[in-house]
Amino acid sequence: MKRLTPSDVLRGKRNVDAGTTQQLAIVERIMADVRSRQDEALLEYTVKFDGATLSQLRVTEEEFVQARQQMKKEDIALLQQAAQRIKTFHEKEQRHSWFQSESNGTMLGQKITPLDAVGVYVPGGTASYPSSVFMNVIPAKVAGVERIVMVSPPGLNGRIPAEVLVAAHIAGVQEVYKVGGAQAVAALAYGTESITSVDKIVGPGNIYVALAKRAVFGVVDIDMMAGPSEIVVLADDTASPKEVAADLLSQAEHDERSSSILVTFSTLLADQVADEVERQVDDLPRKQIAMDSLKQHGAIVVCTSMEQCLEVVNKIAPEHLEIMMKEPLRVLGKVKHAGAIFLGRYSSEPVGDYVAGPNHVLPTNGTARFSSPLGTDDFVKKSSVIYYNEEAFHAQAPDIARFARMEGLEAHARAIEIRMEERE
Amino acid sequence: MKRLTPSDVLRGKRNVDAGTTQQLAIVERIMADVRSRQDEALLEYTVKFDGATLSQLRVTEEEFVQARQQMKKEDIALLQQAAQRIKTFHEKEQRHSWFQSESNGTMLGQKITPLDAVGVYVPGGTASYPSSVFMNVIPAKVAGVERIVMVSPPGLNGRIPAEVLVAAHIAGVQEVYKVGGAQAVAALAYGTESITSVDKIVGPGNIYVALAKRAVFGVVDIDMMAGPSEIVVLADDTASPKEVAADLLSQAEHDERSSSILVTFSTLLADQVADEVERQVDDLPRKQIAMDSLKQHGAIVVCTSMEQCLEVVNKIAPEHLEIMMKEPLRVLGKVKHAGAIFLGRYSSEPVGDYVAGPNHVLPTNGTARFSSPLGTDDFVKKSSVIYYNEEAFHAQAPDIARFARMEGLEAHARAIEIRMEERE
Repeated sequence: MKRLTPSDVLRGKRNVDAGTTQQLAIVERIMADVRSRQDEALLEYTVKFDGATLSQLRVTEEEFVQARQQMKKEDIALLQQAAQRIKTFHEKEQRHSWFQSESNGTMLGQKITPLDAVGVYVPGGTASYPSSVFMNVIPAKVAGVERIVMVSPPGLNGRIPAEVLVAAHIAGVQEVYKVGGAQAVAALAYGTESITSVDKIVGPGNIYVALAKRAVFGVVDIDMMAGPSEIVVLADDTASPKEVAADLLSQAEHDERSSSILVTFSTLLADQVADEVERQVDDLPRKQIAMDSLKQHGAIVVCTSMEQCLEVVNKIAPEHLEIMMKEPLRVLGKVKHAGAIFLGRYSSEPVGDYVAGPNHVLPTNGTARFSSPLGTDDFVKKSSVIYYNEEAFHAQAPDIARFARMEGLEAHARAIEIRMEERE
Repeated sequence: MKRLTPSDVLRGKRNVDAGTTQQLAIVERIMADVRSRQDEALLEYTVKFDGATLSQLRVTEEEFVQARQQMKKEDIALLQQAAQRIKTFHEKEQRHSWFQSESNGTMLGQKITPLDAVGVYVPGGTASYPSSVFMNVIPAKVAGVERIVMVSPPGLNGRIPAEVLVAAHIAGVQEVYKVGGAQAVAALAYGTESITSVDKIVGPGNIYVALAKRAVFGVVDIDMMAGPSEIVVLADDTASPKEVAADLLSQAEHDERSSSILVTFSTLLADQVADEVERQVDDLPRKQIAMDSLKQHGAIVVCTSMEQCLEVVNKIAPEHLEIMMKEPLRVLGKVKHAGAIFLGRYSSEPVGDYVAGPNHVLPTNGTARFSSPLGTDDFVKKSSVIYYNEEAFHAQAPDIARFARMEGLEAHARAIEIRMEERE
């Protein structure tokens, strides 16, 4: 693994993949086409991009049943258990409406209401994981969203993988369509004959999906743009080099673009982890992916102090941060930016991927500076609620009218004064 | 005011202003220019678009002092009072980190951390209001954001209006730059010699500002795209036609594109309000704006039942909703989509603009279906926190490894098993 100095990291600049002009043009064309020709366009693009000729887009009851039959009973049980744990955590993070009525005669508060309808994009191919279905669907369910629609590109056989359909079923999704890419995003945002539009689209996808989501932002809401997975392990010399190396590799195997970074002030640990990574990578089934990922985006950063380690961590703002130190709580308060923070030796990152409960859809590419894990908050919205009784109104009315006039808004002032006059 | 039938409203479709190709090209050119030539480009665009030749971008201490001297003492006191009320409300809505430690040996929770740096865009000209400065800045302050930067295009005299500077000062903003448009957004997102980049950009602006914000979304976070202001008054025959008309006009005077809609099942009220609007509009200083707005976007919708009224309201998903009915609480639970809900006769919309406390930056153009008022939530982010002790880990480890293998991620399974082996 290559070594970076702290200042290499601290000087780094970030970019967002805005797509090439050509990619943007393709997305625009597809989206305009779906808006005008609707289902017909969806079916044609599914032939063109996914190689599947479908007679209908919606997954049938029979396909759900077959998917269940294809899976081992133990695996289904495992899925059910994981779904339950994820549900439990998200129930805890759920917010509720609140009001405060004051003796001056006002009542102010916030009403929390679930979104009506949400679309979940599930990528096709090797990137489709049942755990991701749970992480996108369960918070929406817990938040109280009534209609959850899943879209996913079919394989060449015209089908969606069994695990994905079973996960959808366990999570309570009945409405699944076999369509992917920018065309699926357009359908979710604008609606077609067979797909009614939704209010928000979540879930990861390739650059075409990301550009399409960006284009419909405002017509519907979208989640963050997902980038490649990242881990930073912040470790002192009490950490086991074997465990640190194994955790770095568990990120590296995801994708060539994943990044796995060790930040430490122990040169001994740095050397030992470098050796261990080389040893362990050798017999991984996804060895090539892991090696490419480590070569391009892996790094070991040796700092001169704990302060500098934390500066580097906060600059990276990693999706996953493991704190493998003697006293992880000692530094927790100094971590400003991270999607998920794993404390101590037994909180290996894969623990958070499946069964712990917190969401594994996390901000990537440094967006933990301003974004949060997916959660129930993403599937509700707030409305302010304002009530003034007669006394409270008259006590503040002159100030309100004066403020309105200061801003040059006479009709605002008069709306107040009309009510003042009626008292006189 | 024109009459619409409920089905006119329910059939309506929405679009988002995606900008013309020409506007997009202008924004791209400006942004690329700011990234390469930085301050030099900012100063040139300020000459070109704002007609102001500046020697430096940052507002000086002296300018703040002069602004204060230009304002009446009573107006400053009014601003301070409003700032205090807005602060009080936002302190109530603030969230805190939470953790739950369970007897099985896990601790799970969420750490809430303020963003490091936020940029607030304040439009120039007649659309710059001190109340908007408060509504954008105070939630960020309450959330704990350390660095808040304001940008606003200067007038021809090279200055920012006194009220805006005084409001900034009261709200605790010291860093203000005289720059607007797409160039200001580029500077906030990427940084220049004199403006250090921020993590999130909020505040309304024209189409160029909106397109620039959309383009940097991902490098930084942005708030929603602000559209023209809207009000729906839901009223029964207990409402005063004078008051309803005055409230409709207080929206209509904002902007020709504002929309003011009465929804009722009382044909009597509908007729009376139509007459009152005509009467009251006549001697408003912003009469022409109000009349244009009412003509293009104003409407009275007479429904046949309360159910239908609510269907219409939820379809519109208005920024502001006044419920001027005998028992407003009776229908509150059926309102699904609205930015702010004003209950009863004395909760006239202007009450919420200045002094009540809840934020007046609200979702427009139907985005209340999925967006919320601006608030402290917009200036913090969450990090999941996951801790497993040895026992909790070993109890779940076999399941985690099995799940990882089901998803084809061997290195994930091994990261778990390395820790299992070390126990044996």
